[in-house]
Amino acid sequence: MSLFSNVPQIKYEGRKSDNPFAFKHYNATEVVLGKTMEEHLRFAVAYWHTFNANGTDPFGAGTAVRSWDSLSPLDRAKVRVEANFELLEKLGVPFYAFHDADIAPEGATLAETNKNIDIIVAKLKEFQQSTGKKLLWNTANLFTNPRYVFGAATSNNAEVFAYSAATIKKMLEVGKELNGENYVFWGGREGYESLLNTDMGLELDNLARMLHMAVDYAKEIGFGAQFLIEPKPKEPTKHQYDFDSATTLSFLRKYGLKDHFKLNIEANHATLAGHTFEHELRVARLDGALGSIDANQGDYLLGWDTDEFPTDLYSTTLAMFEILKNEGGIGKGGVNFDAKVRRTSFEDDDLFFAHIAGMDSFAHGLKAAAKLIENKTLDAIVDGRYASFGEGIGAEIVAGKHTLASLEAYVLSGQKPIVNRSGRLEQIRQAVNEVIFSV
Amino acid sequence: MSLFSNVPQIKYEGRKSDNPFAFKHYNATEVVLGKTMEEHLRFAVAYWHTFNANGTDPFGAGTAVRSWDSLSPLDRAKVRVEANFELLEKLGVPFYAFHDADIAPEGATLAETNKNIDIIVAKLKEFQQSTGKKLLWNTANLFTNPRYVFGAATSNNAEVFAYSAATIKKMLEVGKELNGENYVFWGGREGYESLLNTDMGLELDNLARMLHMAVDYAKEIGFGAQFLIEPKPKEPTKHQYDFDSATTLSFLRKYGLKDHFKLNIEANHATLAGHTFEHELRVARLDGALGSIDANQGDYLLGWDTDEFPTDLYSTTLAMFEILKNEGGIGKGGVNFDAKVRRTSFEDDDLFFAHIAGMDSFAHGLKAAAKLIENKTLDAIVDGRYASFGEGIGAEIVAGKHTLASLEAYVLSGQKPIVNRSGRLEQIRQAVNEVIFSV
Amino acid sequence: MSLFSNVPQIKYEGRKSDNPFAFKHYNATEVVLGKTMEEHLRFAVAYWHTFNANGTDPFGAGTAVRSWDSLSPLDRAKVRVEANFELLEKLGVPFYAFHDADIAPEGATLAETNKNIDIIVAKLKEFQQSTGKKLLWNTANLFTNPRYVFGAATSNNAEVFAYSAATIKKMLEVGKELNGENYVFWGGREGYESLLNTDMGLELDNLARMLHMAVDYAKEIGFGAQFLIEPKPKEPTKHQYDFDSATTLSFLRKYGLKDHFKLNIEANHATLAGHTFEHELRVARLDGALGSIDANQGDYLLGWDTDEFPTDLYSTTLAMFEILKNEGGIGKGGVNFDAKVRRTSFEDDDLFFAHIAGMDSFAHGLKAAAKLIENKTLDAIVDGRYASFGEGIGAEIVAGKHTLASLEAYVLSGQKPIVNRSGRLEQIRQAVNEVIFSV
Amino acid sequence: MSLFSNVPQIKYEGRKSDNPFAFKHYNATEVVLGKTMEEHLRFAVAYWHTFNANGTDPFGAGTAVRSWDSLSPLDRAKVRVEANFELLEKLGVPFYAFHDADIAPEGATLAETNKNIDIIVAKLKEFQQSTGKKLLWNTANLFTNPRYVFGAATSNNAEVFAYSAATIKKMLEVGKELNGENYVFWGGREGYESLLNTDMGLELDNLARMLHMAVDYAKEIGFGAQFLIEPKPKEPTKHQYDFDSATTLSFLRKYGLKDHFKLNIEANHATLAGHTFEHELRVARLDGALGSIDANQGDYLLGWDTDEFPTDLYSTTLAMFEILKNEGGIGKGGVNFDAKVRRTSFEDDDLFFAHIAGMDSFAHGLKAAAKLIENKTLDAIVDGRYASFGEGIGAEIVAGKHTLASLEAYVLSGQKPIVNRSGRLEQIRQAVNEVIFSV
Ligand SMILES: [Co+2]
Ligand SMILES: [Co+2]
Ligand SMILES: [Co+2]
Ligand SMILES: [Co+2]
Ligand SMILES: [Co+2]
Ligand SMILES: [Co+2]
Ligand SMILES: [Co+2]
Ligand SMILES: [Co+2]
Repeated sequence: MSLFSNVPQIKYEGRKSDNPFAFKHYNATEVVLGKTMEEHLRFAVAYWHTFNANGTDPFGAGTAVRSWDSLSPLDRAKVRVEANFELLEKLGVPFYAFHDADIAPEGATLAETNKNIDIIVAKLKEFQQSTGKKLLWNTANLFTNPRYVFGAATSNNAEVFAYSAATIKKMLEVGKELNGENYVFWGGREGYESLLNTDMGLELDNLARMLHMAVDYAKEIGFGAQFLIEPKPKEPTKHQYDFDSATTLSFLRKYGLKDHFKLNIEANHATLAGHTFEHELRVARLDGALGSIDANQGDYLLGWDTDEFPTDLYSTTLAMFEILKNEGGIGKGGVNFDAKVRRTSFEDDDLFFAHIAGMDSFAHGLKAAAKLIENKTLDAIVDGRYASFGEGIGAEIVAGKHTLASLEAYVLSGQKPIVNRSGRLEQIRQAVNEVIFSV
Repeated sequence: MSLFSNVPQIKYEGRKSDNPFAFKHYNATEVVLGKTMEEHLRFAVAYWHTFNANGTDPFGAGTAVRSWDSLSPLDRAKVRVEANFELLEKLGVPFYAFHDADIAPEGATLAETNKNIDIIVAKLKEFQQSTGKKLLWNTANLFTNPRYVFGAATSNNAEVFAYSAATIKKMLEVGKELNGENYVFWGGREGYESLLNTDMGLELDNLARMLHMAVDYAKEIGFGAQFLIEPKPKEPTKHQYDFDSATTLSFLRKYGLKDHFKLNIEANHATLAGHTFEHELRVARLDGALGSIDANQGDYLLGWDTDEFPTDLYSTTLAMFEILKNEGGIGKGGVNFDAKVRRTSFEDDDLFFAHIAGMDSFAHGLKAAAKLIENKTLDAIVDGRYASFGEGIGAEIVAGKHTLASLEAYVLSGQKPIVNRSGRLEQIRQAVNEVIFSV
Repeated sequence: MSLFSNVPQIKYEGRKSDNPFAFKHYNATEVVLGKTMEEHLRFAVAYWHTFNANGTDPFGAGTAVRSWDSLSPLDRAKVRVEANFELLEKLGVPFYAFHDADIAPEGATLAETNKNIDIIVAKLKEFQQSTGKKLLWNTANLFTNPRYVFGAATSNNAEVFAYSAATIKKMLEVGKELNGENYVFWGGREGYESLLNTDMGLELDNLARMLHMAVDYAKEIGFGAQFLIEPKPKEPTKHQYDFDSATTLSFLRKYGLKDHFKLNIEANHATLAGHTFEHELRVARLDGALGSIDANQGDYLLGWDTDEFPTDLYSTTLAMFEILKNEGGIGKGGVNFDAKVRRTSFEDDDLFFAHIAGMDSFAHGLKAAAKLIENKTLDAIVDGRYASFGEGIGAEIVAGKHTLASLEAYVLSGQKPIVNRSGRLEQIRQAVNEVIFSV
Repeated sequence: MSLFSNVPQIKYEGRKSDNPFAFKHYNATEVVLGKTMEEHLRFAVAYWHTFNANGTDPFGAGTAVRSWDSLSPLDRAKVRVEANFELLEKLGVPFYAFHDADIAPEGATLAETNKNIDIIVAKLKEFQQSTGKKLLWNTANLFTNPRYVFGAATSNNAEVFAYSAATIKKMLEVGKELNGENYVFWGGREGYESLLNTDMGLELDNLARMLHMAVDYAKEIGFGAQFLIEPKPKEPTKHQYDFDSATTLSFLRKYGLKDHFKLNIEANHATLAGHTFEHELRVARLDGALGSIDANQGDYLLGWDTDEFPTDLYSTTLAMFEILKNEGGIGKGGVNFDAKVRRTSFEDDDLFFAHIAGMDSFAHGLKAAAKLIENKTLDAIVDGRYASFGEGIGAEIVAGKHTLASLEAYVLSGQKPIVNRSGRLEQIRQAVNEVIFSV
């Protein structure tokens, strides 16, 4: 039975196509820099936005009407599984991702909740086997239920910490059962509303304790997924401890967790933190911590997480540039559409149009980034600009041969005149335009 | 000879006073929580804003007219020394702080520049001896001269790195000569304008190299000052590597520099990074890195560094709360007014009125923070909220006795119902109001 | 029957009181500048935040549990009426405000909805009569129901325009029935998500058409309430047409509506638009359009409408300063707490503590503002600064006696040297501190 | 004699060209929608950024070294005239724009200043005649000199008002002498730093008085230029009265000036006010007030006016879309590059590369916008979405045939079910991508 019966299989038809149900850029088997687009991009659908969200916002009720709305919670959960795999198949998307709360209704007790989860996980596993689709990552939702009002691992209430631990344990087991390639931690309530009533020191210590327990348990059960932390600076909490890449890396280093985690970087979270998406990716990449991405975009003039489907080709190009430059590319991670259709895009078809827009925009970005790399558009500029560190005094500095005193001696004894050359930023931007727009 | 002849000695006269040239709150010898206000606050005057700035902004020429404006560069530098100590004495401020470029004119070569610096340093030393005033910190200005257009330690030009090293060496020697209690690094151009033409990896490595050289040289010459890094997210650079406290601490840890540096935290830089001042102080404090503060305030509705004199009593109270909670208080650091009179406050008297406003606001904040601590206004709230980690399962978690599995067992075997209690934020805010306003 | 049985009558006990259920500043009968505090402030409780909201946010379920939660929609609506009047009485608040959707459940048709409204309105009227409490304003909620997904008066769907008109008609009748002193228009969805699919010209014309119809109908039925528009720049919509005071006044002038509307200005909406609260009040005041205020506060570091209870005494003081300077003060308007308890303040008592905090903060602000006016703290400064327009050439300019040519002649024929005097902002800010903190 | 001797004439060579001194998109004589690119775009060079700015920023000295730097002020002014026309000719730009302070050094008195201006104006006129280049607009710089520290028309000092009036008079005469097609008012200091010491009512009245005097004088001397106001929300002033398009239009209406002024809209000022560039253009267009544009771009993550050369093709496309939709297109106005080369782009060649990047980006935007219009990409969407106002009840509403009562009757008597259709924003964004990127 089809949930999206008027949607055909979405195929690559190229830029000339007028078919709204076709890709103009994403051609899964097309080879770019030695790998297929599918291998580079490893697209994933986000269960929560696509099958659970209905367009509610702080000032309005849901606008989307789905065929499964009227069912009982457990039946609804089952139909959503079917919808998930139908959508993955029609879009040709190889992965999906979910929180526990997305896939199964919460029970009155943890035991009941886990029973519900088991029912759905069995169904997901069956579908995975029959379709070949895979789990990019799963995670525990430790922010929606009122018990997490003050956080989960960082709650001031030890009972909540305990409950959170039990929940994470279950989801690690689920990840193992479904062969999840990654496991994500996003601490939406791990932060504070006000310093006035917060013991930040204890909270951070507890957060580290929980993550160590998770690392230990995954090892114990032989769950080999890559562990990821997803930074976000604020919202829902006034301040979240995993503010951005650098803050999260600082935390991981301080608490001896650096070797066990990489980062899942979201575009809209980057901009809320005052950074570009590519900045966050670069920071992670330089620290060997670029693990996966949540592909979306925000609105620079709005101060909240709009989680829009990504269509800005500047952003997709520069993101893919960082990924192509990353050792192993996106690796075990993927390009997960943590994006929701606009509240005004409330029809079922929009779920497809939005993913097509996002996939084509990333495919376009991949091709543009590959061209930037093949043409050495940026590498040539960078190599030229830093050439002075490859020879003479610069090379000696990099080799660790100098001290303040030896450099002072160098300067006082007749350093050659300091000549800087223009950074040529306007020209470079135009060159990047030409690459993106000639893909 | 007096440079500010119509300004009398500023004394404490209390809140009843109508004298604009008097303190209403700052009473240097008044004891608060066991130390005098002078010992708690360790005020410093910022040479650059007070004696060099003239009200220029990106759209307008200087508005301030000072008596020394018409002198030759070196004579002007000498008169500014006199102005500095007259102002320190009249305000009863014990410390001052400067960059090399503030105190002496730059010469055509490093040798000439250093000669100019030596002349002024000798004069500063004389004045220090005769007045008892001290140097809170000095630093090298590695951002104004065009040679630093692409940074100093992070320039793409190795010759600039070398020149910067020589300059830092000189300023470390100057710090030693003047018994500076701290030495500050602020990297205004250590960042990037665009990732498109930047090798961030090499730049960060080079920044670390420079800091290691500085640590080594200070040790070599026996200069025992506390080393401080001052974070700032942006301006003048689009992105600065020392974005905020967490980012800087991450960098220090990564490059093995954590033991050698503390942070100099500025209020306006905190808010530009999307944080409150007290947040940045708390982050540093929890990492043992709260070294000193640059006291000022920004305008939340403006996106640049306005460096206003601090008069917001909420901010001064919460900042002093963090400092009082810090082990050793402000320690070797101080409360440095990195603040400039508004372009519209262009008269000499404003230099005094602005410092009086800032000093009184910090004295008020100190008294309010002390009262918050004495009354346990906030401590009682925090202790109550986190009590569950002091007993039972919470205490066991903190003691490291649990795993995910043991906590799941705890939950499944009949955990007591999870009951959270209100965080009472509105009531707490009103309580804080009452404390601040009844000082 | 009491809904808040453990809450006593809240009385004024002054600053010495330790009773959390008492006012420290708000003393309803205390006379300030010739009027009682009650007359100056005309406090109102916002029905939606206080009786309907439950702490839901975009990432979490409601946290508040109220005694009426389990009732049927209509019974719940009835109990909320009782809760409203009990809270008004215990707090000594004279007014309340509501949207249609707050007070009664929506029916399957407009007729059913109106029937539900009638039932509750009758009950509200009875309570008004028995308690003496009054309706500050009511309004139509034209943003929550999915039919308003593209706006109400500015929807692209003419059927929605018609439905909105019918709803406004009903609410004008309700306002008349309950002797509402004002009627508010807030267009949460009157704006656009993207210009790409928006006919802004038609939408603005339609908005004006609707407002004209409302003016006409109120006249027709003899409903003499003051009409108010509440500006807000964004959220829920990406851009709202009533962006801020100036934008709204421009619209009213363009469409011939200026004489029929004043503004209801909300603090948090001001800051989201990049303005201070007092700026928005001043702009409205200078145009004779300061009608009423929505008293709350935002968080300058967050980009959404947090609608916090107001506790910032700088803000309440400067807001009350504008109101005291307004001809007739707040007039028919009032100080409506469009504020919600934090999601973390989920207990019933918080509803009282939060209102107490807000009322005391506004009472403190009123006293401080009155003192600023009595002492002429600011007036003396302003009068002095602009004195040149009261005499000589300045007076002639103001009197309209000059042209560019006559002023050029004046300048060329020996204008006296231009001498500006310092604006003394740092000193003024300290003086304002002293006034606020010595109330 | 050539000032830019190594720069050749810049010609259109198309996208295949590798020549950095060539246009890839701007082809002056190419016809788009019935007009040549030159007629559509009417490019102008901004004198101040291009010939006067040197890369100074609040933390650093100038980085650009120009051949005329060492000359005396008046000689420098003369050489800049030559540089201006050489650059205009080499770029094929037909217009330029300036402030008085850009072209001639200020004298000790107004008379001396005017004499200097006359010398340069004579030279500009000669060059205009010999080259055919024209003045797009001129203006008076009433913000740089310290006398304007509190504003010009809105200064608290009547002598400053008088001096400003005399200066505007002179510049109107200069505009007439040089056949300027527009005259611009930008009030960088017409605003306030703090409401605490500001009489906003008097200041706004005085601003209106000055503008009326200017209108009258232009009429008196027969200067027929289009008058423009350039909105900007803040910087250098904390708040500027001409905050954005809507605020400025409100002011113009209130003071009876609406018929005499259009707007000069700058991209970076739009974003600083919280709007997109296209929003500001749309608002002006709908009010018949889209007069001219200052073409540049800001950085959404920075809070100040970066005035970057425009290279974002989304922005140039949507700006040109609004201009093509405007009655008469850009009319007497033009596309003025109020943009400065980055401080890091300090070589002479960058002046050309930056203008080439900006011109090509606007030419690309023009072609993309034309294609959007020819294909009816957006018009078809908009027409479809609002169709309900073209027939039945919608048409009646627009025709003014309804009241609240008649619409209620319509709804109650069996309105057809309200059915909204998806706004399809994701799909539309992808469609716009395809148009921009296939130009
Ligand atoms: Co995400
Ligand atoms: Co997000
Ligand atoms: Co500082
Ligand atoms: Co600063
Ligand atoms: Co409101
Ligand atoms: Co609000
Ligand atoms: Co401009
Ligand atoms: Co600008």
